[in-house]
Amino acid sequence: MKFELTSEFLIQFQSAIETQDIDYLKSVLNDLYSEDIIPIITELENVERKYVLQLLDNETVSRIFSNLEVNTRNEIFTLYSPTEIAVFFNELYSDDAADILNYLPIKLREEIIANIKDVELSVNINELLRYDSDCAGGMMAKELIKTNLNWNVKQTIDEVRKQAENVEKLYSIYVVDDNDVLKGRVSLKKIILSKDKTAISEIYEPDIISIETYMESWEVSEIMQKYDLETMPVVNVQGKLVGRITIDDALDVITEQAAEDIQAMAGVSAKVEEDDSVWKLVRSRLPWLIIGMGGGLLGAAFMGLFEQKLILIPAMAFFIPLITATGGNVGVQSSSLIVQSLAASDAFEESIFKRLWRVFIVAFVNAAVICTIVLLFVLLIGHPLKLGIVVSIALFFVVVLASIVGTITPLILDKFNINPALASGPFITTFNDLLGLAVYFLVAGMLFNL
Amino acid sequence: MKFELTSEFLIQFQSAIETQDIDYLKSVLNDLYSEDIIPIITELENVERKYVLQLLDNETVSRIFSNLEVNTRNEIFTLYSPTEIAVFFNELYSDDAADILNYLPIKLREEIIANIKDVELSVNINELLRYDSDCAGGMMAKELIKTNLNWNVKQTIDEVRKQAENVEKLYSIYVVDDNDVLKGRVSLKKIILSKDKTAISEIYEPDIISIETYMESWEVSEIMQKYDLETMPVVNVQGKLVGRITIDDALDVITEQAAEDIQAMAGVSAKVEEDDSVWKLVRSRLPWLIIGMGGGLLGAAFMGLFEQKLILIPAMAFFIPLITATGGNVGVQSSSLIVQSLAASDAFEESIFKRLWRVFIVAFVNAAVICTIVLLFVLLIGHPLKLGIVVSIALFFVVVLASIVGTITPLILDKFNINPALASGPFITTFNDLLGLAVYFLVAGMLFNL
Repeated sequence: MKFELTSEFLIQFQSAIETQDIDYLKSVLNDLYSEDIIPIITELENVERKYVLQLLDNETVSRIFSNLEVNTRNEIFTLYSPTEIAVFFNELYSDDAADILNYLPIKLREEIIANIKDVELSVNINELLRYDSDCAGGMMAKELIKTNLNWNVKQTIDEVRKQAENVEKLYSIYVVDDNDVLKGRVSLKKIILSKDKTAISEIYEPDIISIETYMESWEVSEIMQKYDLETMPVVNVQGKLVGRITIDDALDVITEQAAEDIQAMAGVSAKVEEDDSVWKLVRSRLPWLIIGMGGGLLGAAFMGLFEQKLILIPAMAFFIPLITATGGNVGVQSSSLIVQSLAASDAFEESIFKRLWRVFIVAFVNAAVICTIVLLFVLLIGHPLKLGIVVSIALFFVVVLASIVGTITPLILDKFNINPALASGPFITTFNDLLGLAVYFLVAGMLFNL
Repeated sequence: MKFELTSEFLIQFQSAIETQDIDYLKSVLNDLYSEDIIPIITELENVERKYVLQLLDNETVSRIFSNLEVNTRNEIFTLYSPTEIAVFFNELYSDDAADILNYLPIKLREEIIANIKDVELSVNINELLRYDSDCAGGMMAKELIKTNLNWNVKQTIDEVRKQAENVEKLYSIYVVDDNDVLKGRVSLKKIILSKDKTAISEIYEPDIISIETYMESWEVSEIMQKYDLETMPVVNVQGKLVGRITIDDALDVITEQAAEDIQAMAGVSAKVEEDDSVWKLVRSRLPWLIIGMGGGLLGAAFMGLFEQKLILIPAMAFFIPLITATGGNVGVQSSSLIVQSLAASDAFEESIFKRLWRVFIVAFVNAAVICTIVLLFVLLIGHPLKLGIVVSIALFFVVVLASIVGTITPLILDKFNINPALASGPFITTFNDLLGLAVYFLVAGMLFNL
């Protein structure tokens, strides 16, 4: 059942395009879901793409468009006129249509909208384009089925019949009053199991979770995940029902957020993928490497102050990587734990003092174990006791300080609405490298002068 | 609408428990969804928990149980007899019930099952407990609504009426043949819009995505996300319909996977949270710190071989943090990009050669920029040209090698079915630290001896 795109398949497919072997192409495409056709389209040349797309029905093409990667899609659009593109839009839900338009130049956008035959759809799209794409208004679709609180089951079924083509996956009908204010919902199951004359007001559930258009997409996703909701109605400030959000959109937000956090931790900026162009990859990685490099050079300059000490005790240099690596590891551990606890919405807000106290204790235990091992190793290798003590004491302070820095930084970033995951990336390791060096040489300076 | 648990609220709530202010407690609890009661229950003393739970109806309690953190739940269970616990189980779906039982000692598990009044439920639970919790069989619920291919709409509605109490969120009915083999599905919408006499065989959709019981949970989640499915039927090897999986379960798998990846990258093992006990935190962090420490000590031993060189040119030591930090940063960047591309299921499988070539080019460009800056800096600071050249050349090789190591390691881990995200953690930074030191001192050894 699961389709995997291989290079053998691709070669065969492309040669079928070249020889215009329509029978083969159609039989292959017929067996595939639109989601499986997407990677094929992505790999093809632009002219080949157009050839394949004209073999598919409009619904499949519009599904492919709404899930294609932005650049590929915009490339394909260059082969079509706005009128031709508008035809595919007739098959789209308003939210997917608005998403696609959001990534197009304004002129093309307006031309496409002007050519959409379905007047209701173009009105809906225009409304959705007014919202930021990362708020509930930008996530929602206008298509939904609603019934009036004063109607009965029969009237509702008639209404479903009228509206039904708009909504593919449907299991609940929103209930509104005469002013379109959201009052609750009634499940399709209840409709099926009730008599025609039953009043909606008797069977509807008034207790419904809704959100306002201006709420941020991560909040929306959080709420849907927390309360296990498959769809959620969106209301405006007057409480009027204006749209609905489905779980698949929330899921995309959650997946994207996780990817962003991982990229922040890894020091890769922007939405970049391994198979992007070299230039894009360099641009997303180099700035972070330069930050790290800056830290390294600063460290070099700092150590220059201690050149005399290094000449006297060259063995001091041996433990520099140990000190910096430990500081970095501890910092990343601490910050990632805080980042996760910030992300867990239902976590109980502990006082910062209580948090730091536990951080301190954990650091203390970890530091004690590591310092003991290191001290034994240094002596075992035959270095003087004094060096062992210097390294151990420095390491101890590094673990404790790096824990505290790793804990506080994401909290501060979060306060300023910056993604706290940045605190687990190159910033913290660079900072902790410098912190480690400073502690090490200061401790050495004090102890060796005794 | 959104409830936030504050310490003021908690104090007030706990004092209401102490004074047995049932009116206050009931009014507060009535306004809350079960998902909001969970953090309150978590923060209470065990005896207080029981007091609060007995104020709630069985359905709410069972919802709370199925979403509570395992330790808290098992703690609460110690206050109840198996018979009392079984009462709550009658309100649960089979999959949630099996999940809870999976975390209990076998004896208690058997006692609870023996006391469940609903015979069908206990049979279902016993079946589910046979499956691994991280495969489709372990994720699925037995509750579903199905109809026979040979029936008509009227018969189907009657069947829905019979089975309906089992399924809360329902928008599609599975269609099976006389042998219970899955044949397709029919949407509730179609049922509502069709005449009573219409044959199911005329209106059902035969094209349905299903999965086998043995498929792994991450595959299940991937498929549901890719094809935008809210529920998916599960079949056994004979194609018989045995259960269904809902998107909320897939969502949990995806969220957990992301959390695991981040912990692997941060060097925190096991499912640990910032507010866990000190001992648990130490246990999950110390092993990774010891790996890093081992690397640091190995590095120290290695540098011991170059003591004479360090005495002659102590400034060499200044650039050790620069070398190791750059290697670490580059390695983490490279591996995280590979990890993400491995996670993107629809990514086209490029040849390893093509991948490495692009990695090499990106590394080359990054290295060139960094080396130029570093060379200028070293000269500016007044170090000899030779040292600048050594540092730059070493840095160049470190960037290129760390990129390659960072790219290959997750691919190898993935081949052996180990979470590739581990490659972005302390392992890679430790390894690259050592790699960087080796390159640095070898280059220095060669050039300074000229």
